[in-house]
Amino acid sequence: MKKQVKVGLLGLGTVGGGVYKTLLKNRLTILERTGCAVEVVNVLVRDREKERGFAIDEKMLSLSEQELLGDEQIDIYIEVIGGIHPAKKIIETALNSKRHVITANKELMAKHGAELLRLARQNGVHLLFEASVAGGIPVIHMLQGYLTANRVHEISGILNGTSNYILTEMAKTGRSFPEVLAEAQQLGYAEADPTSDVEGYDAAYKLAILTNLAYDACVDVEGIDRQGISAVTGPDLLLAERMGYAVKLIGHAQDQDGAVQLSVRPRLLPAAHPLSRVNDVFNAVTLRADVVGDLTLIGRGAGEFPTASAVIEDLTALLTQGEKIRRPNWERPLAAAAEAQQAGSYYLSCTSCPEHAQALSEAVQRELAACGGTIADYRTADHEGRLHQAWLLGGVTEDQVHRTVENISQIVSEPLTALVLNVEGEIPAGVKWEAEASGYETNARYA
Amino acid sequence: MKKQVKVGLLGLGTVGGGVYKTLLKNRLTILERTGCAVEVVNVLVRDREKERGFAIDEKMLSLSEQELLGDEQIDIYIEVIGGIHPAKKIIETALNSKRHVITANKELMAKHGAELLRLARQNGVHLLFEASVAGGIPVIHMLQGYLTANRVHEISGILNGTSNYILTEMAKTGRSFPEVLAEAQQLGYAEADPTSDVEGYDAAYKLAILTNLAYDACVDVEGIDRQGISAVTGPDLLLAERMGYAVKLIGHAQDQDGAVQLSVRPRLLPAAHPLSRVNDVFNAVTLRADVVGDLTLIGRGAGEFPTASAVIEDLTALLTQGEKIRRPNWERPLAAAAEAQQAGSYYLSCTSCPEHAQALSEAVQRELAACGGTIADYRTADHEGRLHQAWLLGGVTEDQVHRTVENISQIVSEPLTALVLNVEGEIPAGVKWEAEASGYETNARYA
Repeated sequence: MKKQVKVGLLGLGTVGGGVYKTLLKNRLTILERTGCAVEVVNVLVRDREKERGFAIDEKMLSLSEQELLGDEQIDIYIEVIGGIHPAKKIIETALNSKRHVITANKELMAKHGAELLRLARQNGVHLLFEASVAGGIPVIHMLQGYLTANRVHEISGILNGTSNYILTEMAKTGRSFPEVLAEAQQLGYAEADPTSDVEGYDAAYKLAILTNLAYDACVDVEGIDRQGISAVTGPDLLLAERMGYAVKLIGHAQDQDGAVQLSVRPRLLPAAHPLSRVNDVFNAVTLRADVVGDLTLIGRGAGEFPTASAVIEDLTALLTQGEKIRRPNWERPLAAAAEAQQAGSYYLSCTSCPEHAQALSEAVQRELAACGGTIADYRTADHEGRLHQAWLLGGVTEDQVHRTVENISQIVSEPLTALVLNVEGEIPAGVKWEAEASGYETNARYA
Repeated sequence: MKKQVKVGLLGLGTVGGGVYKTLLKNRLTILERTGCAVEVVNVLVRDREKERGFAIDEKMLSLSEQELLGDEQIDIYIEVIGGIHPAKKIIETALNSKRHVITANKELMAKHGAELLRLARQNGVHLLFEASVAGGIPVIHMLQGYLTANRVHEISGILNGTSNYILTEMAKTGRSFPEVLAEAQQLGYAEADPTSDVEGYDAAYKLAILTNLAYDACVDVEGIDRQGISAVTGPDLLLAERMGYAVKLIGHAQDQDGAVQLSVRPRLLPAAHPLSRVNDVFNAVTLRADVVGDLTLIGRGAGEFPTASAVIEDLTALLTQGEKIRRPNWERPLAAAAEAQQAGSYYLSCTSCPEHAQALSEAVQRELAACGGTIADYRTADHEGRLHQAWLLGGVTEDQVHRTVENISQIVSEPLTALVLNVEGEIPAGVKWEAEASGYETNARYA
């Protein structure tokens, strides 16, 4: 790589601003450690007049993709626009003009990564995307740049900071999902349309990227079993905590003879689980590899500077490693399998008017007895005049739990709101539980 | 790097055996990803007849350093003997014969790393040492291979698995240090002479290595403020937990205008601290960098395969990156400063016969009032007929706490066993505490 490196910055939003400011602030560190003087020479923006809160030479700002892509002096493009259009076309043009591209675009990499990586290889340049997953956490570097002698066969991650912030706040304060979501939107932690974050689409994009890297293959992001957090209530988090668990939205990938189980779901994690204490907007990923075992990385998953850091470490890798950077190979299609239907542990809760509560709890006992499952814990909480009942079920399949929900919903006149969540790990033997304030006599039978 | 790579293995103990077995088991993965066929051709052992629990060609085993070092076919030496002698001489000879060296030797790197790295540079070969710190956790790679645009200005780590196992077991079971140590020795987690592990020498070696990498400098390992865990008692862990803290042996490095504060000490970590839940033989490191913020890595800090993984990932880095690997520069001496004497939070405990307890607790109140400190929490526990009292002190310097200990020890006839520990972070406002079974009337005054 030559000594003077010129960068074209595509987008000057939160991440773009962080990249620009950091390249200025740390240019001596970068020069000292890479031998290259890096300079941003051209920036694509939507609005030249926008107030950005930092100084930038007006002459550098451009409204025209064509102008930026035609700028011959640029060695490396950094794409921080996001979304599929126009980012995909822009990156294709940049790669075809034999310039390296660094992107933070998870949706684009998850949906079109294989094709874009092929294009980069054909043009003898690199397409790097550390910033597309878990912000400042170098999990892509771990998988692609570090773990070479290791085979990774399981990935678990808290990959969406917005949902993690919402779940953390709900658990801390017992407030409802809509209430905390509204607050997160005010704080800028959640977007006006929060669907991608709270329904698990964003986490699914990131999980697909990590899975592709771990398995040198390409999964269909549409095939990922996805469940969001919008159905989780304050009482659920409260009762799960009393049972000794934290609820986290977990992206999970695991080998399953030739295929890979892929899911993004809220899960109950026991207190000892390395991800159970990762709160607020933090992200974390646990990689399970054949030699090193479990490796957990925790850090800021989003935000101006953590994401900028990931972009710029991709840049310094280009400057120092160049052609030595190992290229991902996403050519082999990999089928996504649903979670295996083996007996495991599940959390079941339902909310009803108090009069129906005892009938429901007795019905759950009958159903569990019928399918040979066990009730390891049972808790109740009064909530806005209704009763919230929660069961920790062992030795049942997910289908059996869903059947239980169908059957018990028959016995009450009101429409039943029920929630079923996966429980991570074995239920500790001899779990103790005591009935809550409004527990029933019948509880004794579960003991 | 040529396609056939021959390795000389110096030592065939736990780690050496793991390296040998893993290079065999994963040779196809390594070939596929590096393009190199790696083969162990010569192994230095102390005893050729020793039962190793795995098959290895007798002809490959050698008792002579000279023979191994003279073996012209060897491209890379892996040193897993440990200690200064003869490892230092062997590595010097290998480097001078222009062969790369990979070592797991923390004591050697901490004490003579600068000189050995200089020798490697002079000979145009590499000396790699990922396995010397935190076993399978790639923290050296993070500092030297990944964080290039970032400046790391603070390091906190659980760097010794043996002490962490002992502290975890003591906290879980309330058993005494000697009792748990003996068990750890039976389990092979602790050596016959546990001094290096439990008195913080081992952690200090690792902290020195990480500090040298973070600051591109060289600290004197003797200058590290070091406190072991042997004075921590079961009741201390119990009462700290009731106060909402976990006790961990923490290696800590932090900028302090031109110098660096270095310490290895047991510290009280609040439950929310990312290292507070890292238990048993696991290690963890939190790096605080100027762009990315806090990055925490958690994994197995020791053991056959995690350590072998670190050694072999160094090997694959040599095969794929070769001369592109960034060389550490440890030429600049860096002074180690003691922790700044600013007011902070401390844990103080003392054990006395019950008759003296009230006088002592009143004396502590007087001392704290005199130096303007506060008592944020107070707990007591009966222990083997004696009373264990513990205070959580705020707004005091370490000297003031030690003076308090001196002064209160004057007022009792018996020799007083007292313990002073650092408390991480601010004491949460409005800490609640209740007196334990054997608490006193006077406790009320602290509320």
